[in-house]
Amino acid sequence: MARKAEKIKIIPLGGLSEIGRNMTAFEYKDEILILDCGLSFPEDDMLGIDMVIPDITYLIKNKDKIKGIVLTHGHEDHIGSLPYVLKKLNVPVYGTRLTLGLVEIKIKEHKLNNVHLQRVEPGDKIKLGEFEAEFIHTSHSIPDACAIAIHTPLGIIFHTGDFKIDYTPIDGQVMDLHRISELGKEGILVMLADSTNVERPGTTMSEKSVGATFDDIFRNATKERIIVATFASNVHRLQQVLDAAHKYDRKVVTSGRSMINVISVAQDLGILNVPEGLIIDINEMDKYDDNKIVILSTGSQGEPMAALSRMASSDHRKLDIRPGDLVVFSSSPIPGNEKSVTRVINQLFEKGAEVIYDRLAEVHVSGHACQEELKLIHTLAKPKYFIPVHGEYRHLRQHGQLAESLGMPKENVFIGQNGTVFEFGKDYGKTSGNVQSGRVLVDGLGVGDVGNIVLRDRRHLSEDGLIVVVVTISKDTGKTLAGPDIISRGFVYVRESEDLIGEARKVVRVALDGCEQQNIREWSTLKSAIRDSLKDFLYGKTKRRPMILPVIMEV
Amino acid sequence: MARKAEKIKIIPLGGLSEIGRNMTAFEYKDEILILDCGLSFPEDDMLGIDMVIPDITYLIKNKDKIKGIVLTHGHEDHIGSLPYVLKKLNVPVYGTRLTLGLVEIKIKEHKLNNVHLQRVEPGDKIKLGEFEAEFIHTSHSIPDACAIAIHTPLGIIFHTGDFKIDYTPIDGQVMDLHRISELGKEGILVMLADSTNVERPGTTMSEKSVGATFDDIFRNATKERIIVATFASNVHRLQQVLDAAHKYDRKVVTSGRSMINVISVAQDLGILNVPEGLIIDINEMDKYDDNKIVILSTGSQGEPMAALSRMASSDHRKLDIRPGDLVVFSSSPIPGNEKSVTRVINQLFEKGAEVIYDRLAEVHVSGHACQEELKLIHTLAKPKYFIPVHGEYRHLRQHGQLAESLGMPKENVFIGQNGTVFEFGKDYGKTSGNVQSGRVLVDGLGVGDVGNIVLRDRRHLSEDGLIVVVVTISKDTGKTLAGPDIISRGFVYVRESEDLIGEARKVVRVALDGCEQQNIREWSTLKSAIRDSLKDFLYGKTKRRPMILPVIMEV
Repeated sequence: MARKAEKIKIIPLGGLSEIGRNMTAFEYKDEILILDCGLSFPEDDMLGIDMVIPDITYLIKNKDKIKGIVLTHGHEDHIGSLPYVLKKLNVPVYGTRLTLGLVEIKIKEHKLNNVHLQRVEPGDKIKLGEFEAEFIHTSHSIPDACAIAIHTPLGIIFHTGDFKIDYTPIDGQVMDLHRISELGKEGILVMLADSTNVERPGTTMSEKSVGATFDDIFRNATKERIIVATFASNVHRLQQVLDAAHKYDRKVVTSGRSMINVISVAQDLGILNVPEGLIIDINEMDKYDDNKIVILSTGSQGEPMAALSRMASSDHRKLDIRPGDLVVFSSSPIPGNEKSVTRVINQLFEKGAEVIYDRLAEVHVSGHACQEELKLIHTLAKPKYFIPVHGEYRHLRQHGQLAESLGMPKENVFIGQNGTVFEFGKDYGKTSGNVQSGRVLVDGLGVGDVGNIVLRDRRHLSEDGLIVVVVTISKDTGKTLAGPDIISRGFVYVRESEDLIGEARKVVRVALDGCEQQNIREWSTLKSAIRDSLKDFLYGKTKRRPMILPVIMEV
Repeated sequence: MARKAEKIKIIPLGGLSEIGRNMTAFEYKDEILILDCGLSFPEDDMLGIDMVIPDITYLIKNKDKIKGIVLTHGHEDHIGSLPYVLKKLNVPVYGTRLTLGLVEIKIKEHKLNNVHLQRVEPGDKIKLGEFEAEFIHTSHSIPDACAIAIHTPLGIIFHTGDFKIDYTPIDGQVMDLHRISELGKEGILVMLADSTNVERPGTTMSEKSVGATFDDIFRNATKERIIVATFASNVHRLQQVLDAAHKYDRKVVTSGRSMINVISVAQDLGILNVPEGLIIDINEMDKYDDNKIVILSTGSQGEPMAALSRMASSDHRKLDIRPGDLVVFSSSPIPGNEKSVTRVINQLFEKGAEVIYDRLAEVHVSGHACQEELKLIHTLAKPKYFIPVHGEYRHLRQHGQLAESLGMPKENVFIGQNGTVFEFGKDYGKTSGNVQSGRVLVDGLGVGDVGNIVLRDRRHLSEDGLIVVVVTISKDTGKTLAGPDIISRGFVYVRESEDLIGEARKVVRVALDGCEQQNIREWSTLKSAIRDSLKDFLYGKTKRRPMILPVIMEV
């Protein structure tokens, strides 16, 4: 009977039913293994927020159980929360070369000490208490990505990480399908798999196909400067740009902090192969003709502060866009970034550049598996239970349906939310309650100090602005000594609306007089009287509802 | 030589190099004809703005020249500014049945009187001074759409309006290619043509193809309720939903104000054919089994206040989403709405509904011509000069390139901005200066009272919130009598940050003491001292820059 009680808990703390912020805890007896530690970018309604990290209250409570953090790859949505988490939980971190290379940049930025990073190679197995984490090479839009097989006393848990199946990867290292096949034969208890592209039929194109497009573009660009914007972390993409530059006898200038950082790290690690003298300093650029230059830049998502956006809006210190420049967006917009990207594209066209982007040519491929690739992984791994991960709710549902279409019983598919506890024994799987989870907002130095009330106020202020009403009253008599003064911001432009503000002042005075006549001295009542009278007056005049802040001073 | 001076000016006042707000003035001697009068929806950075209308200063200055407004079709981006424009310029308005039907709804809402609407039929020619506007039937995602040929003493100007070429339209009326061909043979001086889909190769699918998908969906849905969300103005789409409902013996419930309005107008005009008893009152719905009901709803763009979004968030008074419901988004997200749409899709899935949307099935087709259709129109119309319209700058550029690829000389293609004056004579075309143009923001009842300063303040408030500092000082001594009081909104949640606000108060007090010691009494200096000290203090503590509003009261 003791055996029967044995169980594994799988607890997603981020990344389920939403994009980003991936983090999952695996718990067996009194041991916890953490897989990934990502951030997500703020939603539209999270005004002023810089990033979002997972709520790790549950982990902090169970601090002593944690054996380590295992990282699948180096994207922000898998490693971005690490500095914040390590401040609370100083546990060892395991990852491959580039993953740790990128982690180290973050650790330096956050000035963290005593961080225990341990580099692993694909194929390595790391003993973490009763867990054994096996790193399995995959393909993704960043090198050194891995799936993780977690060997436990109850069976194997297989997490695909983010992956695609690329039969012709740039580094020649095909995803280790053999090992996944072996594990499948051995028997996988639970699989967690990437759901990002589950809506897309067919297969994702090979990274190599982008190289063919680059070759075309470079061959035909006999006069122009070429500017390529892409994700810095897509090192194989960078390699292909460098290769094309080298082949067509162009020098490469790099722009954007993350681009420069990643190239340096990847070059040091031997992941990026840069021929001697190919990359030149930005200040050397003028020595070369336009058709001898490639600029490799950040900003492929239209981020306002990134290098390409600055060039497009004539706001870059050293680079400008000139008529005839050929700009390549080697990317596709992340959902939510569509308008920012098209804004930059339009600006570039207006400056006389030619712009090539994903709608016009094959300058980008996804890093995630489409339906046919997912079917292959399900077939090879043939897990008993399945938890779709890494997707919005609609993706998880559709990934569940895909598993069912391959013969998995509906009741073996588990779809949950962050904080859901999925419990598995040798012969069963179920959800069993929830742990605390959620989003922690990071704004400047503040971690978690901006909550719903602050966001609600920011939203209110952003829509209709603000009216501050200040009045000084006598402590003795209750009579108004100064004011009411009215200050508005973000409501109407005051110089053009002096009448409105003048009338508003009268409305407040009438309200205060009313209170005085009724001998009302209570601040809260006075404030309500001001707020109510003004709210109705302004709505009647403008159909707007600015935030009204009454301030009463007593002397 | 007198003849030589004759010229036509074409002046876009909206809709060029941006989506929406279409409005173009055609000027010959002392006469002006206006084509369309649209609005655009606010950009992300136009916080709190309801809609954007064109700046018509130029038209107001030339009021007496205006002969009338000609409308191509009834979409908001072509008629939405009409109520605002008619308040300033009461000129006759010409349009087809449905176009004017939708205009009348607006005129009622704005309680306008004395509006001169004149209904035309496709094929009609309207004399407007020396201009003659000919309405030519086209296909688009709204019935009764027209291209306009403007016959002038200098030649024909042909404006396609928004169009696609649909060889199998729902109403059987194919776009009048014969007339365009005739005009082309006669000789078109200038063409203005829709550029929306210029990036898309091939042709747009026929509206009828959506009907085939609906048929599949309805045939297979033997148990479920069906909910279809689409644009209310896409009357042919509504017709196809009604037809499918009728065929599969379901009753139709309509939801959403614009859906109910448009169905009523289109039915009255005989554009929508509704079998007796097909549409039932929402309160009758419970009398029918789920598989006998279709709900036709607004909200296909994820608009938070629309019917479908309310159902998805359990916020609709009469309708809810139940497990098993089948929801069809018969639409594709307008750029910028992607995240709102996927938010609603996820909510629907979470409520247990099945959701079909454009990524999963052919439930929507565009209303705009793709490359091959554009090539046909260019070939038939074979204009001498070409102005690409209705698109962002990138679309205009690419449409220009498409024209060139068909043999038009580069110098005959004119790409401009709003306010650009395009001037054409019998034998020349050129740009000649600019007129005042731009965006007028509508916020509640305010038209144009929210400008850049107000928006900048709203943006600032939305990002980091606000600190109000109030202090009452003595008129006689300059000494502080009350305060400093500090109120914050949207900055930090005060209860959790009492220390920070307490420290901030001390910082202000020190600054004020400093001023007092130096005998500084000038308000502007005091305010600067407060602002500067607080700004540095708060940035150091939080890395945020809230708006700081110092208020000084004197008694």
